[in-house]
Amino acid sequence: MVTTLTRTIIGKSATKYDAFAKVTGEAQYIQDLTQPRMLWGKILRSSLPHARILNIDTSRAEKLLGVKAVLTAKDLSGRPIGFGNDNEILKGTKVRCVGDEIAAVAAVDEATALEAISLIKVEYEPLPGVFDPILALSDSSVLVHEGKGTNLSMDYHFETNIAALDAAMEQAAVILKDRFTLPFVTSASMGTHGCMAMFRNGELTMWTPTQVPFLYQHELMMALGIPGKRIRVIQPAIGGGFGAKLDMYPYEASCAHLSMVTGQPVKIVFTREEEFQASRPRQPMLIDLVTAADGEGHLLARTAKVICDNGAYNSWGATTPFVGMQTISSLYRVPNIRYDAQIVYTNNPYSSAMRGYGNPQHTFAVESHMDMLATKLGMDPLTVRLINANQSGDITPQNMKITSCAFSETLSEAGKNLGSLPSEAGKLRGKGLAGMIHVGGGARVYRSDGCGAVVKIDDMGRVVLLTGATDIGQGSDTVLSQIVAEVLGVDLKDVRVINNDSDLTYWDVGSHASRTTFVAGNAAKLAAEEVRTQIVNAAAEILKVGPDQLILKDNRVVVTNDPELFIELTKLIRAMHFRQDGKLLVGMAFYDPPTEMQDNKFMGNVSAAYSFGAHGVEVEVDTGTGVVKVLQVDAAHDVGKAINPLGIQGQIEGGCVMGLGYALSEEMKVREGRVINANFLDYRLLTCVDAPEIRGKIVESDEQQGPFGAKGVGEACCIPTAAAVANAIYAATGVRIKELPITPAKVLQGLNDLRKTTDNSEIEN
Amino acid sequence: MVTTLTRTIIGKSATKYDAFAKVTGEAQYIQDLTQPRMLWGKILRSSLPHARILNIDTSRAEKLLGVKAVLTAKDLSGRPIGFGNDNEILKGTKVRCVGDEIAAVAAVDEATALEAISLIKVEYEPLPGVFDPILALSDSSVLVHEGKGTNLSMDYHFETNIAALDAAMEQAAVILKDRFTLPFVTSASMGTHGCMAMFRNGELTMWTPTQVPFLYQHELMMALGIPGKRIRVIQPAIGGGFGAKLDMYPYEASCAHLSMVTGQPVKIVFTREEEFQASRPRQPMLIDLVTAADGEGHLLARTAKVICDNGAYNSWGATTPFVGMQTISSLYRVPNIRYDAQIVYTNNPYSSAMRGYGNPQHTFAVESHMDMLATKLGMDPLTVRLINANQSGDITPQNMKITSCAFSETLSEAGKNLGSLPSEAGKLRGKGLAGMIHVGGGARVYRSDGCGAVVKIDDMGRVVLLTGATDIGQGSDTVLSQIVAEVLGVDLKDVRVINNDSDLTYWDVGSHASRTTFVAGNAAKLAAEEVRTQIVNAAAEILKVGPDQLILKDNRVVVTNDPELFIELTKLIRAMHFRQDGKLLVGMAFYDPPTEMQDNKFMGNVSAAYSFGAHGVEVEVDTGTGVVKVLQVDAAHDVGKAINPLGIQGQIEGGCVMGLGYALSEEMKVREGRVINANFLDYRLLTCVDAPEIRGKIVESDEQQGPFGAKGVGEACCIPTAAAVANAIYAATGVRIKELPITPAKVLQGLNDLRKTTDNSEIEN
Repeated sequence: MVTTLTRTIIGKSATKYDAFAKVTGEAQYIQDLTQPRMLWGKILRSSLPHARILNIDTSRAEKLLGVKAVLTAKDLSGRPIGFGNDNEILKGTKVRCVGDEIAAVAAVDEATALEAISLIKVEYEPLPGVFDPILALSDSSVLVHEGKGTNLSMDYHFETNIAALDAAMEQAAVILKDRFTLPFVTSASMGTHGCMAMFRNGELTMWTPTQVPFLYQHELMMALGIPGKRIRVIQPAIGGGFGAKLDMYPYEASCAHLSMVTGQPVKIVFTREEEFQASRPRQPMLIDLVTAADGEGHLLARTAKVICDNGAYNSWGATTPFVGMQTISSLYRVPNIRYDAQIVYTNNPYSSAMRGYGNPQHTFAVESHMDMLATKLGMDPLTVRLINANQSGDITPQNMKITSCAFSETLSEAGKNLGSLPSEAGKLRGKGLAGMIHVGGGARVYRSDGCGAVVKIDDMGRVVLLTGATDIGQGSDTVLSQIVAEVLGVDLKDVRVINNDSDLTYWDVGSHASRTTFVAGNAAKLAAEEVRTQIVNAAAEILKVGPDQLILKDNRVVVTNDPELFIELTKLIRAMHFRQDGKLLVGMAFYDPPTEMQDNKFMGNVSAAYSFGAHGVEVEVDTGTGVVKVLQVDAAHDVGKAINPLGIQGQIEGGCVMGLGYALSEEMKVREGRVINANFLDYRLLTCVDAPEIRGKIVESDEQQGPFGAKGVGEACCIPTAAAVANAIYAATGVRIKELPITPAKVLQGLNDLRKTTDNSEIEN
Repeated sequence: MVTTLTRTIIGKSATKYDAFAKVTGEAQYIQDLTQPRMLWGKILRSSLPHARILNIDTSRAEKLLGVKAVLTAKDLSGRPIGFGNDNEILKGTKVRCVGDEIAAVAAVDEATALEAISLIKVEYEPLPGVFDPILALSDSSVLVHEGKGTNLSMDYHFETNIAALDAAMEQAAVILKDRFTLPFVTSASMGTHGCMAMFRNGELTMWTPTQVPFLYQHELMMALGIPGKRIRVIQPAIGGGFGAKLDMYPYEASCAHLSMVTGQPVKIVFTREEEFQASRPRQPMLIDLVTAADGEGHLLARTAKVICDNGAYNSWGATTPFVGMQTISSLYRVPNIRYDAQIVYTNNPYSSAMRGYGNPQHTFAVESHMDMLATKLGMDPLTVRLINANQSGDITPQNMKITSCAFSETLSEAGKNLGSLPSEAGKLRGKGLAGMIHVGGGARVYRSDGCGAVVKIDDMGRVVLLTGATDIGQGSDTVLSQIVAEVLGVDLKDVRVINNDSDLTYWDVGSHASRTTFVAGNAAKLAAEEVRTQIVNAAAEILKVGPDQLILKDNRVVVTNDPELFIELTKLIRAMHFRQDGKLLVGMAFYDPPTEMQDNKFMGNVSAAYSFGAHGVEVEVDTGTGVVKVLQVDAAHDVGKAINPLGIQGQIEGGCVMGLGYALSEEMKVREGRVINANFLDYRLLTCVDAPEIRGKIVESDEQQGPFGAKGVGEACCIPTAAAVANAIYAATGVRIKELPITPAKVLQGLNDLRKTTDNSEIEN
């Protein structure tokens, strides 16, 4: 395929496509949407973490003036939802977590709906709850799902040759064994969940900020028991997703039912408190990691036993070990691997996908160990990583094929000046490093990992890209329009992206796995190239040159070696249209990356490319208070090719701040299944005033299969940060903390313990 | 192209696609639309028909609280609009008709905008006006456009060999010479005009119920002087168009300017009074028709001199003689033709396209003459038509090529029991006949008469047709979805039509010239067939048969001679998608009919097919009051093939009622340029209680180039009605009325005149 020789748009920083609408407030979120005769829906949620429902009395609610419908489990048909279909839309016999949906109400306004909810009387028989996954496994007296006979929901097991693994452990000069503990955190999207359902004339239209409109259509079909072809999914502006908008939620099916029952549009929007309690957090994990290495620091073997607190039901989050095990097996060259993960039902909130999808947890463990290994061997933390780093051409134990790879460069970039640093009195400074690997060329978790795209140009030169790919804030609309503009040689602002309506767009498996730039980018590029071919062929006829002598730039088709010879693009388009046997300019493409589903042994090259990166974090620890101040982050990422450098800087900054929050301050505190800090005062999200200087460093490795060489980077930016912070604290203080978040109390405790140990050893010496 | 052998949807009556939304009130018209921060716009209109503007004082309006912008001519850039660009968006120096736009205001609400308008002081110097086109031509002391030096805006001239024409006139046994007079009528759409403009970030989005979104985009570009590629046109539900929504109106460009100036969305909606005064009526015409025939009734020659009252500016309406002359030259076989039409500026409201586009006027003249010829020769009115009727294979004097033609059948169907009929005392009954011809396979009035269409099917079997074609109420969405459903063998309700947003859809020259079923239908069919080919090829592989052995029906691909062997369509679609090198199902087509632009002598086959029809109307005349009661209409139409018989019945009923109103009651009364009956009490639109029994008779002639044999019929249904009414009144009473509307006063006058003539002749005898 011919492409323009000099790139005028790719690689140049572009303002975000949606910036104007977002900063002026013109973007329409689910909160802004309305429809004539729209009703407000509200969900009555369980106040108990585990209880039998003896009776639900909705009679008073039904009598309230303005209430149009009250639904409970007995009113619904359809199928339970969630991964494994363990989650009823409305719970009729038992609640398994605080926030479980018991009844749904539609009323003429929000206040009436709230009032109606308060009038519903639920008679519970409280049951003992289980809130600790280890207890849940060992003690089967409390079963979250009785029918299953166990609280173990799923397990994952991967291993290389066990004899070889055992032998490697035998030979190892160093063996590290540690437990790493990761808390509940939540994405805290600025836009809370919400949806609006309109059922009329046998057709359901759902407005919902889903990240996966086509999977959503399918899920809704199954949940409601109506044909999928009667469902249209429209996405309003999405106020952040981060994975939590990957699942269809029970309230969404209830909202559809309310509209079906009332014949009116119904909208349900979460309050912030609901968002904390009933949206999906990142999984808490316990990771028992064993790392074995030889005397020079070469990794010989690694095993991990992971316990995930799944909460009461399975969402997509129950599958995150799929990604986490890749970090165990493939972040560094390790020939021998054993990985076990157990997904355990508890009566806690149930977790979901969240940026990184299990990877931040596993990377925290692995990269803490890499530093500990360096310490043990007296090596510097950079060297121990470099000698184990993956290289282009590697095939990892899970059969992942590393194509482009600038991991070593990112480690070297981020890993300058590691270790303890000079500081003022009462403070200790240090810099730590951590690397990461993540899928960067799609991730085949569904039978299609593809994306469809159509590019059209009208007679005026207005270019429209219709794509299935969803921009959840990551900036993909900008990147996709850059790709199309580059191929067609038009101004970036000539390209409009439309991607919010399943009736208009073409299949895409969704915005997750950092796949949009790679997969949707390739689709958009192919569609634009199809248009370009038609343009070039028509222009060649008119200009009487070969098609290969033409380039598209500045809205013209120009003869390469005679720039004075050209035709205006719109003039050409009209000439193609306004003639006998005229044609319109449109191109269609479907791109599905050349990858494979992993087999039941978790072997297979799930992604067409892998992204690498490393963060170097410099911290200052106040030895009196234990407060950790992050002074600086060096974040180097191998992105293949930066299509929009400004966008990547944004991703890096956002990812680092999210990673720093994970490291230092964020924790959704759950006590007996209840979130006790469900607000932004008590849940300590970092804000712009907390952000340190973040020096993003883009490293380009030119991924051959990526659009213009690009690969995914969206999740990557938040993955290694927490580990780098822990390593920096160690570098500064000698305190090794293996449990997030690293609160001042933990640091102080560590400093005290260290002082004791030092004192003891001084005594012993 | 393979098509399904038995038709399951084509030819079966289907409920209108938009019926549910329309009857439930869920359809969103321009009146229903709003945007955050939307302002209301109002136009200050001239109260005088002709005056110089000496001064416009907007200072008080500008000071009014809530007023955001006041614009006058001096504030605008861009170009005058209209056919020939004679119409400034805001008039700064002179007004030429009542309702001319002088100032535009945007304010926070409608009341404030109205108040602001009332505060603008315009100082006029009244000028004498000219309101009669004959006077306007003969007396150049009053010039509507001084710069032009004449009130003649345009003229049209067509002739065959003049010597032959003269010779034919010489030889003729009968020569009829009559003047026919046609009044102002208006389409009186239930949805008044209105638009909403939103200019932001250099992009203009216009919501407007235009019939021609792509021409509109171009016109707006020229009017505003901004690039067309920065303009998006979105059509809300259209509350009737009938041609009046073919032109972009000056207020629409003002609305865009108001949004550009204020940075806020602005909406302007016409009141009903504005709709009467400032929307576009059908042209009043004076038609001097000469018909020459031999003794057996064969037509030898026909000449027409037509004067059209154009009003103050040229709209598309100034080109209606283009169609009218086709009626003169081609409704019946007439070898010798001369046609002259003059489009004359006056200070009256300016007229536009309206259903039939000049044809109802010309058909009234021609079909009155056909009856008068029969009377003169003592022939019956049906026979005189049949012997002159066009037949398939004819080429008319303008080089129009008649393909399918069931004109004679329609005449015979509608022309049963013509003449005087028995009636009770004091009443006279009779039945009259009139035929018609109209373009039925597009009309090449622009360089492209084409339409683009995309058909896609998703994994659930939801089919979407994206088409440029606009449904203005005629039911084309239903017909297009039937075509797609038929080709793909799916349920009609599986097909969704999207056609209201220029960003999504593909070029279509617009809804006019009864072209949508034919042109957009062919485009939709081709696009669906492209999809069908992909389906059949994939199914053939799986079912191991040849593609030609497969048919699509009941959402299955079935082996023709083994109906038990089939594959579910959606299963096949998913099999095509979810595999290596998978694909999505989408087809694209652009159809531009094989026609030609007429040359400057008006020669050329403008349409790929022609539609014929005939109405037989039975009336009862009250001889005491002159009141004409229509008892029955027999309306026979050659539609090629009825795709949706119910839809055609609807068109026939609506067309007949419109034609009956034109015949009997409708007249927009204009006095010195002012509409004096600008309301539905005084403007006598027929309603359902006035409607007689209308017996639609569909005649099928199987148009080879039409989709499934169909050709256009939208305008046809209103064209011959008025002539048939006049002929029926003649049949009943012997009174020949050549001026519409045929009011009771005119009938009484005719009866009195007739009585006098009879008395005189009795005396003379």
